[in-house]
Amino acid sequence: MIIVMKPNAGKDHVQHVVDLVREYGLKEHVIYGTDRTVIACLGDKRMVDKGAIENAPMVEKIVPILAPYKMASLEVKKDKSLIALGPSGFALGGKKIGVIAGPCSVENRKQLIETAKAVRDAGCIGLRGGAFKPRSSPYSFQGLGKEGLDILAEARDITGLAVVTEVVGVEQVSLVAQSADILQIGARNMQHFPLLEAVGKTSKPVLLKRGMSATLEELLLAAEYIINAGNKNIILCERGIRTFEDYVRNTLPLAAVPELHENTHLPVIVDPSHGTGHAHLVPPMCLAAVAAGADGLIIESHPDPEHAASDGAQSITPAALKDLMKRIRRVAEAIDKTV
Amino acid sequence: MIIVMKPNAGKDHVQHVVDLVREYGLKEHVIYGTDRTVIACLGDKRMVDKGAIENAPMVEKIVPILAPYKMASLEVKKDKSLIALGPSGFALGGKKIGVIAGPCSVENRKQLIETAKAVRDAGCIGLRGGAFKPRSSPYSFQGLGKEGLDILAEARDITGLAVVTEVVGVEQVSLVAQSADILQIGARNMQHFPLLEAVGKTSKPVLLKRGMSATLEELLLAAEYIINAGNKNIILCERGIRTFEDYVRNTLPLAAVPELHENTHLPVIVDPSHGTGHAHLVPPMCLAAVAAGADGLIIESHPDPEHAASDGAQSITPAALKDLMKRIRRVAEAIDKTV
Amino acid sequence: MIIVMKPNAGKDHVQHVVDLVREYGLKEHVIYGTDRTVIACLGDKRMVDKGAIENAPMVEKIVPILAPYKMASLEVKKDKSLIALGPSGFALGGKKIGVIAGPCSVENRKQLIETAKAVRDAGCIGLRGGAFKPRSSPYSFQGLGKEGLDILAEARDITGLAVVTEVVGVEQVSLVAQSADILQIGARNMQHFPLLEAVGKTSKPVLLKRGMSATLEELLLAAEYIINAGNKNIILCERGIRTFEDYVRNTLPLAAVPELHENTHLPVIVDPSHGTGHAHLVPPMCLAAVAAGADGLIIESHPDPEHAASDGAQSITPAALKDLMKRIRRVAEAIDKTV
Amino acid sequence: MIIVMKPNAGKDHVQHVVDLVREYGLKEHVIYGTDRTVIACLGDKRMVDKGAIENAPMVEKIVPILAPYKMASLEVKKDKSLIALGPSGFALGGKKIGVIAGPCSVENRKQLIETAKAVRDAGCIGLRGGAFKPRSSPYSFQGLGKEGLDILAEARDITGLAVVTEVVGVEQVSLVAQSADILQIGARNMQHFPLLEAVGKTSKPVLLKRGMSATLEELLLAAEYIINAGNKNIILCERGIRTFEDYVRNTLPLAAVPELHENTHLPVIVDPSHGTGHAHLVPPMCLAAVAAGADGLIIESHPDPEHAASDGAQSITPAALKDLMKRIRRVAEAIDKTV
Repeated sequence: MIIVMKPNAGKDHVQHVVDLVREYGLKEHVIYGTDRTVIACLGDKRMVDKGAIENAPMVEKIVPILAPYKMASLEVKKDKSLIALGPSGFALGGKKIGVIAGPCSVENRKQLIETAKAVRDAGCIGLRGGAFKPRSSPYSFQGLGKEGLDILAEARDITGLAVVTEVVGVEQVSLVAQSADILQIGARNMQHFPLLEAVGKTSKPVLLKRGMSATLEELLLAAEYIINAGNKNIILCERGIRTFEDYVRNTLPLAAVPELHENTHLPVIVDPSHGTGHAHLVPPMCLAAVAAGADGLIIESHPDPEHAASDGAQSITPAALKDLMKRIRRVAEAIDKTV
Repeated sequence: MIIVMKPNAGKDHVQHVVDLVREYGLKEHVIYGTDRTVIACLGDKRMVDKGAIENAPMVEKIVPILAPYKMASLEVKKDKSLIALGPSGFALGGKKIGVIAGPCSVENRKQLIETAKAVRDAGCIGLRGGAFKPRSSPYSFQGLGKEGLDILAEARDITGLAVVTEVVGVEQVSLVAQSADILQIGARNMQHFPLLEAVGKTSKPVLLKRGMSATLEELLLAAEYIINAGNKNIILCERGIRTFEDYVRNTLPLAAVPELHENTHLPVIVDPSHGTGHAHLVPPMCLAAVAAGADGLIIESHPDPEHAASDGAQSITPAALKDLMKRIRRVAEAIDKTV
Repeated sequence: MIIVMKPNAGKDHVQHVVDLVREYGLKEHVIYGTDRTVIACLGDKRMVDKGAIENAPMVEKIVPILAPYKMASLEVKKDKSLIALGPSGFALGGKKIGVIAGPCSVENRKQLIETAKAVRDAGCIGLRGGAFKPRSSPYSFQGLGKEGLDILAEARDITGLAVVTEVVGVEQVSLVAQSADILQIGARNMQHFPLLEAVGKTSKPVLLKRGMSATLEELLLAAEYIINAGNKNIILCERGIRTFEDYVRNTLPLAAVPELHENTHLPVIVDPSHGTGHAHLVPPMCLAAVAAGADGLIIESHPDPEHAASDGAQSITPAALKDLMKRIRRVAEAIDKTV
Repeated sequence: MIIVMKPNAGKDHVQHVVDLVREYGLKEHVIYGTDRTVIACLGDKRMVDKGAIENAPMVEKIVPILAPYKMASLEVKKDKSLIALGPSGFALGGKKIGVIAGPCSVENRKQLIETAKAVRDAGCIGLRGGAFKPRSSPYSFQGLGKEGLDILAEARDITGLAVVTEVVGVEQVSLVAQSADILQIGARNMQHFPLLEAVGKTSKPVLLKRGMSATLEELLLAAEYIINAGNKNIILCERGIRTFEDYVRNTLPLAAVPELHENTHLPVIVDPSHGTGHAHLVPPMCLAAVAAGADGLIIESHPDPEHAASDGAQSITPAALKDLMKRIRRVAEAIDKTV
């Protein structure tokens, strides 16, 4: 880290900070510039709360140099991780793009099995569907719970798709892990650390959604929690951030995809359904995500969006999904990938 | 809710939407305007997922009319709620402003007891201190846990202050509820619904922090979850939102205070420590929050900020707190309140 | 527009608003709902400042229904506009994607002519280059001015590329219009209305960049100013918005591309250079923009980015541009377009 | 500035950067850390475009140390500037808070003179009123122009108030400077540099509004343009920023006030009318702004807000202003200031 002193900092102020730096177990390197004195600290430990030094007199600011995550970084593991998914063992993170689709919520057996078959026939490798739903309002449909999990398991047995469903609390992790192939951590739980640790203790792949105002560093630190607890099978998911834009439910910042690839070995998928909030924007943003280098997609699809129990506005029909998959395949091939 | 049709919507499109509206148990009212047809829906139910109708052909947008929360609203309860806090039973939400102060984390007995006495002597009514700490990095100090709770309880016994501490997971609610007077839900957990329900089943007042990208509506819906689970003793806390601003850790939008007072009976306090991230900005923003009508404040104070285990940069010393309280008192009196 | 009354609005409050509505030349339609009274206003005029009515007693909010722009909208002109560019008359807005490239600033004759040839050889149709530079700091390089324009004109004569350069003030419009083929309005000037009107009085195509915190509606209103002044040849340009994200100079919200296509007949291009701020993110975001349906791209390219007078960090070399164009071509073909 | 190399940067990469640093006229200081090599650059010139070096191989990032503005900073001028306003020569920036009020637009003589008298009687020192109005839509009321200026001048003669009005383009600067006492640069023009230079060549005080997505650094750089052109009489104005918040027109970040006071000698006022967009939020945010240390306020007041030609929703009546001024006075006194 670098400590920048205020313009009029005196020798004693600098010495005071140097003493602090040494107390923190670091080695200082003082540079007297034209306008400012700057103290570079060597042996920068990730554990030190650097902010505290900001409180010393005449300190202007602290500039961290090291990224605070480690095991999720390319510095530690240089080759991209491949995550094996579901019965087929599809390897996410390679040249083959993995598409997951399905309804926001499991509403009933018929709805889900029908959708699952269409999803498989369209060429997807995973099935999404919420059994436990985190909803902003306590009055909204909260999911079928255990019954939903059973229906998802049946759909997997019928179709061979890898089943993804959300765990909304620590207390459901073991239950969900029995039925699902991939445990989803929703955007609102990205920094619910007990849950990160709980899924970190399972052996199931984790689909970790970026929080709607999380930085990429915070996303990678959330992944670090899971790896630190013992589970390296993590899929990062960009699902849009909250900005001033009002024509979308969230702003989908696709540059996060190549930027994450620059910094981590974990695969990155994109959720254009939550990332836009409107069905008409989903197909173009699926194509854009693939072109930007996403390792996969997760798409909301419902046989009857007008009657969906949740997220109807951003769901596409199975027929639209089928057509979309053909277009996705063409774009994938244009960048030397397959679907 | 209001459904706006696209410019070229035909009679059949309107009829299709009218049918949908009726299926959802609502009564329609079609208005043919110069450029648009608009369908007003009567009997607007809070439970209906209005978004689904957006998927019908030729629908341009859905405009909700009713706020989705109810029990937290002034419509249902017209007089302001007073929340009794700690041994003294201080009533937060009235003419007397309640100030809570203390360190980010409980680090050891000496640090906490010393701070607690200074906090009491400065005229505060509550003591904050984290025993279980949610930290962005798994490598950061995570708090003393149970031992921290014991130290907090002792500090309460010595000083008579109401103790506030965070519950980071459902599994700690009963443990924390035994020691603390007020259960804090942190910003990152504002939409961890199982936790909201768990604190909703206790009888302890809940200090609910606004999520860093939550709308006021989402904050009030989070409160609604707690009320819905049985606990009406909720204190809302504005602690800053994430924006493009870079001179602060968070942007503190004080207009949220009067706006919340327009919409809810729950008391509203402000956290200028997290709301700015820098000690030098805390005093002016404390005064501003009081002038904006806040019912209370929560301030980070540490006897030795340069060595704080967490949040050192935004902590003020007990001496600075004592001075600040005098200034807060004067501003409070200028708006006909007391401290 | 729709006026929503507060829950306890009485008959007299409603009547007062009805009177106001009539004064504004509109016709009212009062709907008495279960919880709220709502007043729909027919004959909604784009010119009325609807906000004023919000000040009437017991009015909760005003919901506009009509988009405030008209001539830029698909409602008025249903087929997409094709904008003819430069000596070749390339038609932007059709199946053929138009790529514009070049340095941030014209630095000298050699730099520009060399870049222009490389840009042409790579298959681009336009050359960008700043002669007058709007810079955040008065101490930064401000461009070569008139000399830069002359060099740009020479480059056009040599290469046949359409030259795009920015007009930073009303006083330069006629000078720049003599040399340039396309007049660029920079993001910081998107709402400098005198400039919009001035370029609206020329016959040159205008490249209108979205302001860094402008809504799409505000962008289209800026276009409306230009059309209203007499010039329909407008190219909209998404160049990223300001958000909390810190790994990019701007967040590039590509969903703006399909959303604009839903609402306007004007072509939409994307600037991934400013839209990311880092050279390594430019190629993937170029491909993503094309896949999202952009009609064109504008890319910063410099023969020696390490020594560029401005925007070096986001400039790619001519060699990288050549390679990128091949990849863009493949993605374009995958969505049935060409380059 | 500090240059951070990537983890695997070799000796040759470091040497290449060192050579670049020297070419830029700086002196390097290489620090070999545990995980990273860092190059501190001495003699940091404000004019160098530091970004260009980011493009060198194996450079991870560039960290600027010096603020890019100089003459607006406290480093250069240590005592606060006092700006003399209008006929009375009221000195803004001292212990006496200056309040400016008036309508968004000058609509007619009667409206303005009436408001001006009420504004003076309430104890304000300045009168605001738009003659040339920058409006998002070309169809909105654009102001009375020259006639509006004449009415403003008459109002000044009658009341002795300092008149503030906006200059929307370079071409109006001399005209407006003849009638107005203070030239306002609107938020949308904060980075219209030709206009900054034009007002910088007059001797009139300039009220410079922060752009709705401008950083404080960009605001101070805009002030630097004006000072650089010859005019040191600048009043900075915080008027709210664009965020995801939807209950306000803009989010008013009052911490900007003390932060600006930490960095500049220029006075800082607050505009709670644009800063909230709703009349009911204006009074509490006026009090909060004063408590946060603002040197003044600018408030929209209209005798008949329901019929205002612009900004009706955020205007308060003269009666409300009179009452508000009493409350402002009390809060000012509580922090040892006057009004």
